[in-house]
Amino acid sequence: MNGKTLEELAQHVGGRLAGDHKIKISSVASLNLAGPGQITFLANSRYAKKLAMTKASAVVVAEPVKNAVAQIIVPNPYYAFTQIVVLLHGHRRHKLSGVSAKAAIDSTATIGKETHVHDFVTVSERASIGRRCVIYPGVFIGPDVEIGDDCVIYPNVAIYNGTSIGNRVIIQANATIGEDGFGFATEKGVHHKIPHVRRVILEDDVEIGSNSAVERGSLVDTIVGRGTKVGDLVAIGHGVQTGPGCLIVAQAGIAGSTTLGRYCVLAGQVGISGHLKIGDQVTIAAQSGVASNIASGEKVFGSPAFEMRKALRAYQLIKSLPEFRSELMRLEERLTALEAAPAKSKPAR
Amino acid sequence: MNGKTLEELAQHVGGRLAGDHKIKISSVASLNLAGPGQITFLANSRYAKKLAMTKASAVVVAEPVKNAVAQIIVPNPYYAFTQIVVLLHGHRRHKLSGVSAKAAIDSTATIGKETHVHDFVTVSERASIGRRCVIYPGVFIGPDVEIGDDCVIYPNVAIYNGTSIGNRVIIQANATIGEDGFGFATEKGVHHKIPHVRRVILEDDVEIGSNSAVERGSLVDTIVGRGTKVGDLVAIGHGVQTGPGCLIVAQAGIAGSTTLGRYCVLAGQVGISGHLKIGDQVTIAAQSGVASNIASGEKVFGSPAFEMRKALRAYQLIKSLPEFRSELMRLEERLTALEAAPAKSKPAR
Amino acid sequence: MNGKTLEELAQHVGGRLAGDHKIKISSVASLNLAGPGQITFLANSRYAKKLAMTKASAVVVAEPVKNAVAQIIVPNPYYAFTQIVVLLHGHRRHKLSGVSAKAAIDSTATIGKETHVHDFVTVSERASIGRRCVIYPGVFIGPDVEIGDDCVIYPNVAIYNGTSIGNRVIIQANATIGEDGFGFATEKGVHHKIPHVRRVILEDDVEIGSNSAVERGSLVDTIVGRGTKVGDLVAIGHGVQTGPGCLIVAQAGIAGSTTLGRYCVLAGQVGISGHLKIGDQVTIAAQSGVASNIASGEKVFGSPAFEMRKALRAYQLIKSLPEFRSELMRLEERLTALEAAPAKSKPAR
Repeated sequence: MNGKTLEELAQHVGGRLAGDHKIKISSVASLNLAGPGQITFLANSRYAKKLAMTKASAVVVAEPVKNAVAQIIVPNPYYAFTQIVVLLHGHRRHKLSGVSAKAAIDSTATIGKETHVHDFVTVSERASIGRRCVIYPGVFIGPDVEIGDDCVIYPNVAIYNGTSIGNRVIIQANATIGEDGFGFATEKGVHHKIPHVRRVILEDDVEIGSNSAVERGSLVDTIVGRGTKVGDLVAIGHGVQTGPGCLIVAQAGIAGSTTLGRYCVLAGQVGISGHLKIGDQVTIAAQSGVASNIASGEKVFGSPAFEMRKALRAYQLIKSLPEFRSELMRLEERLTALEAAPAKSKPAR
Repeated sequence: MNGKTLEELAQHVGGRLAGDHKIKISSVASLNLAGPGQITFLANSRYAKKLAMTKASAVVVAEPVKNAVAQIIVPNPYYAFTQIVVLLHGHRRHKLSGVSAKAAIDSTATIGKETHVHDFVTVSERASIGRRCVIYPGVFIGPDVEIGDDCVIYPNVAIYNGTSIGNRVIIQANATIGEDGFGFATEKGVHHKIPHVRRVILEDDVEIGSNSAVERGSLVDTIVGRGTKVGDLVAIGHGVQTGPGCLIVAQAGIAGSTTLGRYCVLAGQVGISGHLKIGDQVTIAAQSGVASNIASGEKVFGSPAFEMRKALRAYQLIKSLPEFRSELMRLEERLTALEAAPAKSKPAR
Repeated sequence: MNGKTLEELAQHVGGRLAGDHKIKISSVASLNLAGPGQITFLANSRYAKKLAMTKASAVVVAEPVKNAVAQIIVPNPYYAFTQIVVLLHGHRRHKLSGVSAKAAIDSTATIGKETHVHDFVTVSERASIGRRCVIYPGVFIGPDVEIGDDCVIYPNVAIYNGTSIGNRVIIQANATIGEDGFGFATEKGVHHKIPHVRRVILEDDVEIGSNSAVERGSLVDTIVGRGTKVGDLVAIGHGVQTGPGCLIVAQAGIAGSTTLGRYCVLAGQVGISGHLKIGDQVTIAAQSGVASNIASGEKVFGSPAFEMRKALRAYQLIKSLPEFRSELMRLEERLTALEAAPAKSKPAR
């Protein structure tokens, strides 16, 4: 681990320094667990009080905090902290295995320079892999798959025929890319499989989480847009197309032919029906179920989902439904009594 | 790609032809993307207007559409279109590898004629695989597994001991079949694992999606019925038994010992509790949670789920709960005023 | 299969015997399917009537049942039955392969005595595996992984670098342990990956289900506590820490940095937001969504979740929302009429 002075770190992230610039920082840790020689961060000034307790040597903050440890002050502390983690710890170092003799590589496949193909990898007919990639053990790369430069494919990922993968794409272990979509034509009680003649395109800088599955398209390519990050156990249906920069959190699912605009956020366990159009910068809260189009900029919650603030308030009131019912009954009784009262001779209704 | 005349296609699907029967069709595409030489389809006559825009050379429809391109008219356009996709594009062509020397095949296993076993496949003791199957790289076939004819098992699927698989079964990549069920007997704070002595049976023509998991039974076999199609990331619990022809969409989950009748449809992210009986042709809408038995023919929605049309209406009203509360308060005030009023001379509010 | 007399079984589980103690029992089965020579169990005395129908030779019960087959009476019938299943059927017998020459084992890795490493397994630099473990085909064990004694790792599991696994841990097929968490710092429209410098710790006696994914920590280790059992397709986020003895059922998901106490139960498809504190012995019903801390001993349901009994009642009332609305309208009409009635000269509102 490389040690750096606080001054070096501040320069590295373009931040302002408050406190002893000579302090030596060797690693990162959380606010609670950090000790001497470590740096931490404060993303939310609500937690500023916690700084009094930290044993970290320094902290990255958005605004100066009084009576606290040495600070690097930057507009986006989490980003600056990320840069520091990369500087001090680096990203995962991969084994530089070259192309293993225990891999099975078709003679028609092409593999770029400085790409490492580990044991038990299959690279099929006409597949091509760019430069400086790492293909972990047990990965299956189907026929005609194209992979760009600087990609990392973790163990036991399966990539079906014809998938197109850009540069700097990361696919976590046990994910599946390009399997057949769930498409069947039912005739006389038999579900006939429709061939999925299209493919999956993962654009540059995409990351796909572990055990996620991205279906190939039947008539339209499935596209995960540039820089979109997909969490674990996510299901992306055939022909889904997302814009760039989306964040799709664990266990979300998007049914076939739905499109997402730019920079959408789908929280955990969200479900979106098929054939919908979701605009740009749409935020969908956890567990929501989306059954209709959503305009750009909207934030929604609920199943079926609607405007988030209203929905959060409305869903809280489910708790009150028994009281609503009692109140309705009480009101009805009082009303009935009142209707009977004014003219005691005639019935209420 | 084989080109066909429109007449040949119409004959192939038993459809009526309207327009130039000599048109040469070489491939399929969606309504929006199709161009000259391509055929598309219109499953829903609501979208008939879109036909004016298509650049396809022909379209498969249920009823003739005026002022449009050449048409093949059939009762079930999606099925006819599927037949055309198969005719023009075919299903995936698999590499005919024979039995790889890089596979690990136990000496007591049997492998049928014309079956292809790719590299890095394990076929365990006493397992048997039928004819014309394709077993992709990295598949694990456990002891005593039986696989019928014409099956395709995609990369890195794991099939535990004793699983029985029929003919024409397809298992997509990274699925798991026959793992131990989630069964523990808790005694004095220790969860004791109960051995799962039963197995999984996948009947003929079943398809299992990528990254799905089908638990083996503890005391009763888990059965996926003939022709049932299971999507990606589906969890099927120990001892679940489905009838034939069910469609179980991505991320649905069925807890242990629940039975499904014939031709049930579970939409995405549906959850069904354990030990329930779901009848025939039951439809369960997306994200629904089922906590009690459902009679044949029912359609349900909600968590907990109830009759679908009622439920869709009722769930829409969650949005109105804040207004319901306000209205209850207003009514209460007016009622209170009124209760005070009759004796007095002042207005209601 | 070993046969045992009923007397031997009763002694084995410390139970009281009612009926012919000489009966020979060779296997177990469910109440419905059991026949002569088989033993079954009755966990819930509600189903005592069913005992009249069983063809089992004996049954394990909590309280004696009149006019029924021979019985073993114990306080915890399911546990006693589990002991009997283990006695008669045993746990899965694994192939004793030794260390396969077809595995790829780094020269710096250490493998304990009587541990079996199957074909196509990767054991990376400095990884260590204890004694009497079974590592199934296709498993990837990353650098610096530590695995204790008596573990079973099923096919195609991927274990990332630095993961620490205790004794008697079971990981079902296609699970992923220690993949990077979903952590990105967004700056100027780019999601920058934060290195996850911490790891996953699976304590003793943990079981992880098939196709589940446990993220490594960014700044804090992810910990699955001793004896905690995790079902299939579960997503556990970065830095999640669970106490001992939790049961986390299929398709549940826990977002980053949330902590669970001791002996919590998360039913199927439950989702828990990040950075929350869930106490001890908390029970969360199926499909619930938890968005705030939960105190020890609480039982909750709903999305967002609240106290279970109240929630079950409240959620049932969603069904009545259309009637609530009608009733509100009727009350309003009657009230308006009444307001107009008493003194006809003044306006209703």
